[in-house]
Amino acid sequence: MRKQTDSWKSIVRRRNRKRHNKFPMSFPVNSNAEMESIVETICKTEQTKYVIGLDYGTLSARAVLVCVHSGEVIAESIYPYPHGILTTLPVSSGTAGESGGAGPGCAEEKLPADYALQEIDDYVEAMYHTIREVVEKAGCRPDDVIGIGIDATSSTFLPLMQDSRPLGRTEQFAENPHAQLKLWKHHGAQAEADRITALAKERGEKFLMRCGGKVNAEWMLPKLMEIAGKAPEVYAATDNFMEVSDYLVYLLTGEVTRCMCHAGYKLLWNEEDGYPAKEFLGMLHPLLFSLEEKLKGREVQVGECAGRLTEEAAGRLGLKAGTAVAASLIDAHVAVPSAGIDGPDQALMILGTSCCMLLCSEKLSYIKGISGCVRNAVLPGLYAYEAGQSAVGDLFEWFVNNCVPGSYEREAAGRGISLHTLLSEKASRLLPGESGLVALDWWNGNRSCLADANLSGMILGLKLRTKPEEIYRALLEATAFGMRAIFEEFANGGVTAKKLYACGGIVGKNPFMMQIYADVLGKTILTGSTDQGSAFGAAVYATVAAGIQAGGHGTVNEAARTMGRTGEIKFEPIPEHVEAYNRLYKEYKILHDYFGAGGNEVMHRL
Amino acid sequence: MRKQTDSWKSIVRRRNRKRHNKFPMSFPVNSNAEMESIVETICKTEQTKYVIGLDYGTLSARAVLVCVHSGEVIAESIYPYPHGILTTLPVSSGTAGESGGAGPGCAEEKLPADYALQEIDDYVEAMYHTIREVVEKAGCRPDDVIGIGIDATSSTFLPLMQDSRPLGRTEQFAENPHAQLKLWKHHGAQAEADRITALAKERGEKFLMRCGGKVNAEWMLPKLMEIAGKAPEVYAATDNFMEVSDYLVYLLTGEVTRCMCHAGYKLLWNEEDGYPAKEFLGMLHPLLFSLEEKLKGREVQVGECAGRLTEEAAGRLGLKAGTAVAASLIDAHVAVPSAGIDGPDQALMILGTSCCMLLCSEKLSYIKGISGCVRNAVLPGLYAYEAGQSAVGDLFEWFVNNCVPGSYEREAAGRGISLHTLLSEKASRLLPGESGLVALDWWNGNRSCLADANLSGMILGLKLRTKPEEIYRALLEATAFGMRAIFEEFANGGVTAKKLYACGGIVGKNPFMMQIYADVLGKTILTGSTDQGSAFGAAVYATVAAGIQAGGHGTVNEAARTMGRTGEIKFEPIPEHVEAYNRLYKEYKILHDYFGAGGNEVMHRL
Repeated sequence: MRKQTDSWKSIVRRRNRKRHNKFPMSFPVNSNAEMESIVETICKTEQTKYVIGLDYGTLSARAVLVCVHSGEVIAESIYPYPHGILTTLPVSSGTAGESGGAGPGCAEEKLPADYALQEIDDYVEAMYHTIREVVEKAGCRPDDVIGIGIDATSSTFLPLMQDSRPLGRTEQFAENPHAQLKLWKHHGAQAEADRITALAKERGEKFLMRCGGKVNAEWMLPKLMEIAGKAPEVYAATDNFMEVSDYLVYLLTGEVTRCMCHAGYKLLWNEEDGYPAKEFLGMLHPLLFSLEEKLKGREVQVGECAGRLTEEAAGRLGLKAGTAVAASLIDAHVAVPSAGIDGPDQALMILGTSCCMLLCSEKLSYIKGISGCVRNAVLPGLYAYEAGQSAVGDLFEWFVNNCVPGSYEREAAGRGISLHTLLSEKASRLLPGESGLVALDWWNGNRSCLADANLSGMILGLKLRTKPEEIYRALLEATAFGMRAIFEEFANGGVTAKKLYACGGIVGKNPFMMQIYADVLGKTILTGSTDQGSAFGAAVYATVAAGIQAGGHGTVNEAARTMGRTGEIKFEPIPEHVEAYNRLYKEYKILHDYFGAGGNEVMHRL
Repeated sequence: MRKQTDSWKSIVRRRNRKRHNKFPMSFPVNSNAEMESIVETICKTEQTKYVIGLDYGTLSARAVLVCVHSGEVIAESIYPYPHGILTTLPVSSGTAGESGGAGPGCAEEKLPADYALQEIDDYVEAMYHTIREVVEKAGCRPDDVIGIGIDATSSTFLPLMQDSRPLGRTEQFAENPHAQLKLWKHHGAQAEADRITALAKERGEKFLMRCGGKVNAEWMLPKLMEIAGKAPEVYAATDNFMEVSDYLVYLLTGEVTRCMCHAGYKLLWNEEDGYPAKEFLGMLHPLLFSLEEKLKGREVQVGECAGRLTEEAAGRLGLKAGTAVAASLIDAHVAVPSAGIDGPDQALMILGTSCCMLLCSEKLSYIKGISGCVRNAVLPGLYAYEAGQSAVGDLFEWFVNNCVPGSYEREAAGRGISLHTLLSEKASRLLPGESGLVALDWWNGNRSCLADANLSGMILGLKLRTKPEEIYRALLEATAFGMRAIFEEFANGGVTAKKLYACGGIVGKNPFMMQIYADVLGKTILTGSTDQGSAFGAAVYATVAAGIQAGGHGTVNEAARTMGRTGEIKFEPIPEHVEAYNRLYKEYKILHDYFGAGGNEVMHRL
C-alpha cells in the first residue's frame, strides 16, 4: 500500500529520472495528486540547480548533492578509505584493508604509533566514486549541477613533484614516510611544534598572538620542519607542499591554487604580515629559510571559484566541463554557513567527541589560547576565530564506559534506552548545584584558553551519598563551564557572541545537555532539527563559487541564509538555573585558574 | 572419619564438660592421642583461669570467654538488641522488633531522624544472656572465671534516679526522649556542640586543646546541654547521668563507679583541671552550673577493679560471688592491649568503615584536630591520644557500589571473587604514581587533623584512559596519605609512633591495602592473623582487674604482652614505593592544606 503523500524528494527523484527536470521547494501539500500537479507546473517554468559538497573525514569521505534553492539534500554517498591509516610502507596497490596494505613484497616494519599516514589514491578514488554516485542517485542533468565544493581535515597534506604528481607514489620515495600524505592527527612533530613556540616566544613573534600563543603539532609548519629535519631528501625533492583539499581541486580543474584559510590556521600566515619571516624559519631549520618557494599556487579565499572542471574530469564524473569548483575548505569551518550563520558575532559550538567553537567578528583581537584567527576564512571580510575543548562527548563516553555500575546498565537495558539517556533522565531530576559537585573538564587537557595538553580532569565535592547521575551531571556542567570560560576570554578581548548556535553529534541526542549549556551560558541556544554535516557546508560554498548567473548565490552570507538549517529548536535559559550556575561557575573559575594558570602545577608534576 | 588432630580447644571443651579442668596453652602436637596425654598431664597439675569480656556495639552485644594464660577465645555469644534503635516512644515492653516496639497503646509519633535512642533493658538482658551462654558453652567451673570486663560505645548514657533506676522506665518519663538511653550516634545536640566550641574558643578554655579544638555532638556534654535546654524536667529529675557501661558494672557489683576514660574524652575532664569550670558550664545553660552534682560515682581508672559480683548477680550468671568486675571501658580503646601493645609510642590503626588511631605517650602535647587525649585511659600512666578518619572502608564500599562498570562485576562474579579483590588485583599491577591520580579522602569529611565535617572528596589527574582500578588505588592511597597527615601532625607536637600496628575488619581482607599503608607511611606495619574484636580487649582488662593472686595479670601492659595477638604478619615498606609516595604525598599535602586549611573554601560553599 502506498503512503498518503510521498516526500517531494522522492517525487522529484522519479521525475528527474524521466525528464531531467527538478523541483525546487517544499510545500504543504495534501495528496500525491496535488504534489504531482505542483511538480508538473514548476518543472515547466524553471530549472532547479544543484551543487555537490564533498567532505574528507579521517576514515571516510562523504558527498552530498544539494538543492541550491531549498538546501534539501537530494542524494548522498559515503566512501571509506580502503587503506585507512597506514601501519606499514610502501602501500601495495593490489591490497587494501583497514590496517593498511601490507601485502607480499611490502616492508613489514611498522610505522611509529604516533604517525598517521594515508594513501592519496584513496582520496582520489573517493572523489570520483562519491560524486558519480550522488549524480546517479539524484538522476540529475549534468547542466543542473553548477558547482562542487571540497572540504577536508587540516592540515592534511602531501609533497608534490614539479609535474604535480605525489612524491610518495614514486619508486624512490614509496618507502619514506615523510613523502606520504600526512593526516591532521600525525603526531610525529611534537618536538618541532614546541621548538617553534619557544623560538617565537623568545623573539616575540607577532603571529603567536593569532594562534593563542602556542603552536600545535597537528599544523603544517611543524610537520614541514619534521620533514626538513628527518628527511631532507624528501624536502629537497618536493616542488610544492599542498593541502590534500587543494590537491583534489587541482585534479578537477588542472589549476594549482592554495586556499589561504589553511595557511592562516596551519602555517602562521596572515593577511597583514604574510608567512613567518625567512630569518625565523631559517632558525628553525636552514632548509625552511626559503620555504615559500615550496608553497606554490594561486592564493584563493573561501567562497571563490578556484577553477572549472576539465573535460577529462567532467568525463569521469558524468558532469559538464566548466562546472565551478570552489576554493578548498577546512572541515569544521564549513559548519558556520551550514548552520545558517550569515554575519558577525554569532558563535557556533560544534559539539562532538571534542568541541570546536567558531566565531566571526569584524574585530581583530589577540585572544589567549585560541586555535587561530584568520580573516576571510569562513565569511568574507570577517575574522574567523577558532577555539575549543579537547574532551566533550569523549568525556561522557569515558564516564559511561568506566564509572557506571552494573545496576544502571541493567536498568537501561531493561527499558531499552542508552546509559546516556538513563543518566540524563536521573540527572535531570536534580537541581543545579544540588549535588555539591564541581568538576574541571580537562580529561584530555585544555585546548582553549589555557592551551595546555598536560592538564587533567578533577572532581570535587564527592560524598558517601554521591550517585553516578550526580557525577554525570557535574561532567556535563563542567564542559559548559569550560565553554563559558572561552566566551569570557573572548569578551575580555572585546569579541562577543550575541547569538549562540549549536550543532554536532551530541546536540540532537541530548536536549538535557543543551538546556544546561543555555543555563550555564545564560543565553538562548539555537540548534537545527537535523545535523547537516560538513559535506553540506562544502555544498553551500559551491553555490557561491558557481555564482548568481549560474543559478547559485552571490555571497556566503546569502547562501547561509537560504540554505542553512540551524535555529529551528531553541533552548531558553531558566532564570533560577542561571543564577545557581553563576555561583557554581565562580567556583569553577577559581579552580580553573588555580590548577590551570600557575596556582598549583600539580597536574604537570603528576 | 575423624580428623587427624582436633584443635586443642575442642579437646579442652570436651574435657571441661567432664571434669571442669582446663588446658592452658597450644603446643605443636602430632596426634589426638598425644594431645589427650598432654591435656591429661597439665590438668592434673594446674587450674586454668578464664575471664569474660563483654562488648556493647551499636546494634548487638558480644561476649567472649578467654583463657588468661594463652589468650585463646574458648567461647563466644552474640545478642542483637531486640529493639534496635528506637523510632517511637514509649517502648512497649511486651513487643520487640528492629524498628522499636510500637505496640498497641504506644504513641505513634516518630522520633526525629537524627535521634538515636535505645532500650536499656536490651543492654541488661544482653549481659545476662551472653555471659550465661559463654560459661555454659565453655563448660567452666565458676571458680575458674576470675573477672569480667565490659566495654561499650561512648558516650552512650542514661539518666538515673536516686535509687539508680533508669528514669526513662518510669511512667512519668516513658514518653520523653531525653530520659532515654542516648546512643553515641544520637545527633540531636549539634547546635549545642557548636555553642560549646564557640564559647570555649571565646574564653580560651584550655581543655579545648585536648580535644583537637572542636567539641563533637556525639560527646556527653553537648547531650547533657541538650537535655537541660529541651527537657529541664528530665534534667531536674535526674540524680546521676551515667555511661551505660558504668551502669552495667553497677548492676553486677552494686557499686556506683565512674570510669574517667569516658569523662576524659566525652566530658572535657582532665586529671589536672577536672571538669570545665562551673562558670563556663553555667554560661552554656544555667542548669549546667552544678553539673558535677549529677555526675556521681567513685572515680575509677581502666584496669582497676570497680567492684565484685553480688550474690544476686552471681546467681543469675552462674558465676561465683566476689568475682572481679573491671572499670568500664570504651570500645575502640580496648583494641590497644588486645593488639599486644604494651607501652608508649606504638600506634594502633583500627581500620574499618572509618579509621581510629590510638597512640599512647608519656608526653602531654596539644595536637590539633585530635578526638581527645586522656591520661590512664588505655595504658596506666600514659596519655592516650585518639584521632581518626571519617571514611575508609566506607569510601571503598562507595566506590564499588557506585563507580564500577558491569563488565568488572561480571568478571568478578565469573571468577567467584569480590569486586574489592578484583580491583585490588588489577590495581596491584600498577606502580605507585603510575596513574597520575591523587585524591583527597574526605568523602565523609575530615576528622583528624582538620576536624571539619563539611569537607568533601576530590580526585585529580583524571584522563580519558583512566581505569576504575586506578581510581580505586588512588582512593586506597588517599586514606593512607590521610593517616600520614595525622602522624605528621602528631610528630609536630613531639608525639611520635615508633612502631605501627593495624587491626580491624579491612586488615585481614586486603593485604594489598596494607602494603600501600606500609609504603606511604614508610614503616613496617604489624597486624594479627585474626581480629580479636573489642570483647577480647575487655577480657584483657578483666584479667588485670582480677589481679595476680586470682590468677590474672599484674598490669595492662603485662596482660597485653601475654594475651595480645597482633604482630604475627608484617608488611615491610618497599624502598622504591616509599620514594614514589614521598613525592605523591607532597602533592596530597599541598591540596590538603589548600582545600582544608583556608586556601580555597569551595568545599564549604558548595
